[in-house]
Formats: sequence, structure tokens, C-alpha cells
Amino acid sequence: MPHIDLHTDKPGTAGLAEYSPETFRLISELAEILLRGENTLTAGERELIGAYVSRLNRAPLCFDQHAATAAALLPGGTELVERVLVDSHSAPITAKLKTLLDIAGAVQQSGSNVTEKLVAEARQEGATDREIHDTVLIAAAFCMYNRYAVGLDIPPLDSAACSAAAQQVIESGYTGESVLSS
Amino acid sequence: MPHIDLHTDKPGTAGLAEYSPETFRLISELAEILLRGENTLTAGERELIGAYVSRLNRAPLCFDQHAATAAALLPGGTELVERVLVDSHSAPITAKLKTLLDIAGAVQQSGSNVTEKLVAEARQEGATDREIHDTVLIAAAFCMYNRYAVGLDIPPLDSAACSAAAQQVIESGYTGESVLSS
Repeated sequence: MPHIDLHTDKPGTAGLAEYSPETFRLISELAEILLRGENTLTAGERELIGAYVSRLNRAPLCFDQHAATAAALLPGGTELVERVLVDSHSAPITAKLKTLLDIAGAVQQSGSNVTEKLVAEARQEGATDREIHDTVLIAAAFCMYNRYAVGLDIPPLDSAACSAAAQQVIESGYTGESVLSS
Repeated sequence: MPHIDLHTDKPGTAGLAEYSPETFRLISELAEILLRGENTLTAGERELIGAYVSRLNRAPLCFDQHAATAAALLPGGTELVERVLVDSHSAPITAKLKTLLDIAGAVQQSGSNVTEKLVAEARQEGATDREIHDTVLIAAAFCMYNRYAVGLDIPPLDSAACSAAAQQVIESGYTGESVLSS
């Protein structure tokens, strides 16, 4: 049960969308740009960064959905996502993505953990300033999403609802009417 | 020096606004609603929550500006803000605001630190569901703002620029053209 009465039986973030539509629309538009907007990082890579941070923040509602979305978008599927979460450095992903996950993990702890060394390592593997910027902002945004959902004690979705939500995001994005009004 | 080249000499968050205008506009609109929108918590109380979380996140750029804004808006001024930051429980603020700061401090650590007990204490002091929701979301949003600024190593403003920025926010808000395009 959430900490507050959301006046709805809708599960997951749909309850928050109904309770506070104005703020929910803004944070959904932010997710749409960060995770699905035009970018040199693929949508699957960006969902993986979001899932990675959500796992570190112990936020099951966000983790389950973004891990499912990343798995659906990345060629390696669920197995790849699980290998990244166990040990990103030994997982079969690009060296650049490994360094960006290191930056995202640092952001999850504290902004000041993003050192010159981590940034230099990402650059050495070909990361652009824009990719470093976007990785920091994606990780920072998930520190908001995760705390918003967990801080209000919003229960995670069951497995079928989570898969359906991931599919809906892949088809309609984070700001489709089906998401915001569902 | 920021970790990435923002292609501007503009200080503080103005550089981020210029580098990534689309995302900056969304997070500014979120700040406008959360900190200045219609609410039973005063704008000063909400700025104080933001300053409190920014201090815990060791984010000087955000802390300086939101502490200055809170001080300008609250009857107790700078002295009150400083007393709250030293020890919120002994500061001359309402019992309700003390419990909301406790919730904000819990969110800063982790969403799961927001316990039933903290929520019950806030309710006992008269906090509404909406105020608890907004406190959680304000604190979560500052965990994003703070990590975004510190994670990219954006230097804090000097004291005069910080006071001017606070005054500008009080007059024009977070989405005034003078802020977004300055």
C-alpha cells in the first residue's frame, strides 16, 4: 500500500500520473527525451543505464520495467541485461558503454563521485561530451524517479503487467496518452 | 571547470540551460510547479526543503541559491535558514515542517528510508497527503538537480551572483525568459 491515498486502484506509476498529472507529465516528457529522443546512444543502452541505476537505488518498480524495456530493445536480451547487472565490466557490451555505466554508478552515489578520471576513461573509449552529459542527467533523473516511487511506497507491478508496460513504452513512448491516462 | 565543454562562459545553471535547452526547460518547469505553484506549503518552506536536501547532497551551487531564496522568502531570514540546517528540530519552525524535513532527509538517503513512522509523525502534526507527496517529490527532484550540477562539476556562483539569481527567481520564477535564456 502506498504511504498516501492516491484515490485510485491503478497500479505502478499510473497511480502517480492520476494523483499529480501536472508534475507526472513533466517527468514523463523528460524520460521521453532522455531515453527515446534522438541520440548517439541507442534507446536500449539508455534503458540499460536507467535499469542499472534503479537496481543500485533498490527501486524494484522502476528496475523491473526499465530492465524489461532494455531487454526487449538490446540484441542480447534478458541474458545480457542480467550479465551487466552482475558485473558490467565482464559483460559483452562496448568498452564505451562500460565507462558510461561507471559514470552512472558514480552519479547514483553522489555527483562528486564523478571524477576527472572516470570522465577521461569514457573519453578514451570514444564517449562524446554529449554522451557524458546525457549519462549524468539520465542517472540523476533516475535518482529522482526511484526516490519518488519508493519514497511513496508504490508497489512494483506483477510480471505480466511489467512486460505489458515495457511493450507499451516501446510502442508509444513515455508520453503516449495510453501511458499518461492509463 | 565543468567536466564537459558547455560552449559558453555563462556561470551556474545558465550554462546547462544553453547546452541542453530542451531538458533544462522541463526540469525548470518542474521546479516552478514544485517550489512556486499553488500549495498549502509556502514558497519559503519549499525552498527550505530544497536547500536542506542540497546541503545533505553537498551540492553548493544549488544549496547557495535555494538557501538565499528561502532566506529572502521566510520571515526569519538567513538566521532561520542557518538554524534549520544546523538542527531542524530545535529551530523555530512549525512542528509540521520539522516532520516534512525529516521525510525530505530520508528521501535524500534512499526512498526506502521513508518509513510508516515518519509519515505517521507528519500526519500527526497536520501534514496532508498532498504535502507528504510534494515533500517526497521535491526532495527526489533535488536529488536529480544536485547530481546533475555536481556530476558535471558546474562551479557555484559567487555571492553577488547568487543573491541576484535568488532575486530573479523570486521576481520571475524558474521559467522566466531571463532565467532560461540568461
